[in-house]
Amino acid sequence: MADRVTPRSEDYSRWYTDVVQMADLADYAPVRGCMVIKPYGYALWENIKNGLDRRFKATGHVNAYFPLFIPMSFLEKEAEHVKGFSPELAVVTIGGGRQLDEPLVVRPTSETVIGHMYARWIQSYRDLPVLINQWANVVRWEMRTRLFLRTMEFLWQEGHTAHATAEEAMEETMRMLDVYADFAIRDGAIPVIKGRKSESEKFAGAVASYTIEAMMGDCKALQSGTSHFLGQNFARAFDIQFLDEHNERQYVWTTSWGLSTRMVGAVVMVHGDDQGLVLPPVLAPYQVVLVPIWRDEAQRALVLEATARLERLLEGVVRLKVDAREELSPGWKFNDWEMRGVPLRIEIGPRDVEGGQVTLARRDQPGRAGKSTVPIEGVADAVTEALQNIQAALYQRALDFRLAHTRYPETFEALRQAVAEGFAYAWWCGSAACEARVKEETTATIRCIPLEQPGGSGPCIVCGEKAAEQAVFGRAY
Amino acid sequence: MADRVTPRSEDYSRWYTDVVQMADLADYAPVRGCMVIKPYGYALWENIKNGLDRRFKATGHVNAYFPLFIPMSFLEKEAEHVKGFSPELAVVTIGGGRQLDEPLVVRPTSETVIGHMYARWIQSYRDLPVLINQWANVVRWEMRTRLFLRTMEFLWQEGHTAHATAEEAMEETMRMLDVYADFAIRDGAIPVIKGRKSESEKFAGAVASYTIEAMMGDCKALQSGTSHFLGQNFARAFDIQFLDEHNERQYVWTTSWGLSTRMVGAVVMVHGDDQGLVLPPVLAPYQVVLVPIWRDEAQRALVLEATARLERLLEGVVRLKVDAREELSPGWKFNDWEMRGVPLRIEIGPRDVEGGQVTLARRDQPGRAGKSTVPIEGVADAVTEALQNIQAALYQRALDFRLAHTRYPETFEALRQAVAEGFAYAWWCGSAACEARVKEETTATIRCIPLEQPGGSGPCIVCGEKAAEQAVFGRAY
Repeated sequence: MADRVTPRSEDYSRWYTDVVQMADLADYAPVRGCMVIKPYGYALWENIKNGLDRRFKATGHVNAYFPLFIPMSFLEKEAEHVKGFSPELAVVTIGGGRQLDEPLVVRPTSETVIGHMYARWIQSYRDLPVLINQWANVVRWEMRTRLFLRTMEFLWQEGHTAHATAEEAMEETMRMLDVYADFAIRDGAIPVIKGRKSESEKFAGAVASYTIEAMMGDCKALQSGTSHFLGQNFARAFDIQFLDEHNERQYVWTTSWGLSTRMVGAVVMVHGDDQGLVLPPVLAPYQVVLVPIWRDEAQRALVLEATARLERLLEGVVRLKVDAREELSPGWKFNDWEMRGVPLRIEIGPRDVEGGQVTLARRDQPGRAGKSTVPIEGVADAVTEALQNIQAALYQRALDFRLAHTRYPETFEALRQAVAEGFAYAWWCGSAACEARVKEETTATIRCIPLEQPGGSGPCIVCGEKAAEQAVFGRAY
Repeated sequence: MADRVTPRSEDYSRWYTDVVQMADLADYAPVRGCMVIKPYGYALWENIKNGLDRRFKATGHVNAYFPLFIPMSFLEKEAEHVKGFSPELAVVTIGGGRQLDEPLVVRPTSETVIGHMYARWIQSYRDLPVLINQWANVVRWEMRTRLFLRTMEFLWQEGHTAHATAEEAMEETMRMLDVYADFAIRDGAIPVIKGRKSESEKFAGAVASYTIEAMMGDCKALQSGTSHFLGQNFARAFDIQFLDEHNERQYVWTTSWGLSTRMVGAVVMVHGDDQGLVLPPVLAPYQVVLVPIWRDEAQRALVLEATARLERLLEGVVRLKVDAREELSPGWKFNDWEMRGVPLRIEIGPRDVEGGQVTLARRDQPGRAGKSTVPIEGVADAVTEALQNIQAALYQRALDFRLAHTRYPETFEALRQAVAEGFAYAWWCGSAACEARVKEETTATIRCIPLEQPGGSGPCIVCGEKAAEQAVFGRAY
């Protein structure tokens, strides 16, 4: 357990897998491409869930649960949708010992089955809007999988809403993109770029897809949450109509939006370092680990008494783990909890007890710089403040990192160099051909067309034609 | 919506389906046997989840997530287990457009895949106990399904623990049975009988199964939660061994325990009446509905102002729904919220505002008896107290009902009559033949051998042989 992770500079991909496994976030399942989310990783996911669920409810959404199995014929009702998802399906053909007449798809996403239900539930404008979210597992058959980032089965939430007008549906699409960005920034300490996906990268069946894109520690992009404006595509496919105020039948306008356990991978890759995981305090299962230190029995009694007092002072203030294991040295424990990314460590030894103080050590600032001494009496305030500082510092560090690895090339050659080392903002004429050429020659893709634009126009980085928007290019997970 | 549900006396089964659908708890999914849990039903399930999850964590358990797909060969490793579950399996045979070499079972329960992982994770006695719970969906191919009570896919939690000794595992089995009973009684206001399942009714692969059994409004039993002592059966099947303190290899002892969305059905059937749902305050999505009443514009302004004040007074105190819809009459709203089982209604009209008071109406006591008037100032305390009284009254009523429908027959003929009308406690010699005869001739089964026994012995109700224990017989869902 006190083994070291592979340094990032040596092999980033192995570093990632080492951290995920050694920090006990996840393990490989017996079925290829599936994972087991271990308790420490699941506690992190629970905190992600809580942060999102609170925001969903505050914006008027309710949770529900739709079935895992979808008749194959449902997927075929929306042409783009089935084209996009059919290569990735897991299909149940046997049930209760018998061959099924119609095969059942294990949901890869639930627009179709939810569309079917909405057609039954929605009759009048009075039934709108419908603002439903679901927490569920989904399955997409993937060949190249990676713990949290790309697994055959993953956990996520998928919101599905129906509205009377296109404007309302578009407002909802953007509202949820904002919710994702707010969550990523404030809870995950992850800076994100909000933007629109290009046509080739949008969700199968959407009119427009929006995304939050984050830069990982190896300068590659991770799409961390998406919000789709589905227009009337699914409403037509599933005949979701309502009587409007003038008693006329209209198709509803729908949206969908999702964020998954992939976010755990983002947290690992944005903040982690060569010691292992670094968790933002808002999401950390344990925000503080308290390590009592003693040499002999007399010291032990003294220190454990102070430990109990600290526990009382911190109860209900922070998520605290006390590591009083007898068989392990303080140094071993320090390394172990550093590897597991606990944001703040409290050390208390006999001399601390005498002085009525403890030592705080910040995970994000190794060595002397991250250490401070605070009186035991004031520990609750000091710890709360330290956690806020760590949260803010992690965000700032990640933002600085992204900015340091972002360029604004003006030639194709400069773009090629830029995407080898990070993100590139460049004018793009909007043509699929130019997009494809960048991908082909650099392996980078258009991560998004950022909502925030410089204004004006410029020459497309590929063809030189006049372009009205800039795109962010980057290699991606 | 203001339609009436079928009276229980007319057709209990239709009453149940009416209530579940009209109160918006659930709907039928397009795939036969599957259901959609609607937002109101899901909110109820969320409260059930929270009540259980809190108890699991308080008893030292952590959550994790294991994969949906299990290799078919895993199930075959435990002989009883595969025999019990193989008729109920949904099987994925196609993935990513190709026939799979080994078919994948959609989990009907997760002992096998979790056993496989535990064998990797557990090395030494220091790794024990492992106390993990998972919230998940499971699939069992059912032919005769019923919303919440028996569906092809359902939501549940399944706890899986591993211990160094049989004693510890048995303690855990009983601890979780107690957790379920405590939850049912205190949160669900559902009296339950704790007991052991007979050999023929136990979980496939268990050494012993324990259950909480509740009586529904039609006097039939519902198994509402089970806790299994698995001995070393799964440890041997999956080779889960550890080095004990003497450095010797030992098989672990395991338990599993589960409670599902079936509990929603129990809440409906234990408390519901001919007006519809009656929800225990601890679990109710809305504990209180506030209905403002007015005739003209002047009254409207007055009443809505008082309504806003009440909202402030009750904020953070109870889960409140304000129903100020303009197009519906107060009477219609009363009926609607009664049907949806909201425990307490607050009515406020112009005369109430003048008198500085509101009217409270208890869902569990229709008519005058359940009404009282309280000053607006004291509404928070009055509502809190009323909710506590309702919770207690619902439990007492359900317990009285069960006791009134429980008999202690001493002859087979009396047993036959007793199980036609409720539960019967009777001596049972323990033989499968006697158990089978009761089932054959009365359709009743042994619900459990209660943990609480009268002591001594008596003649088996079937064969007359000396019996050391009593069993509870009843017809069951």
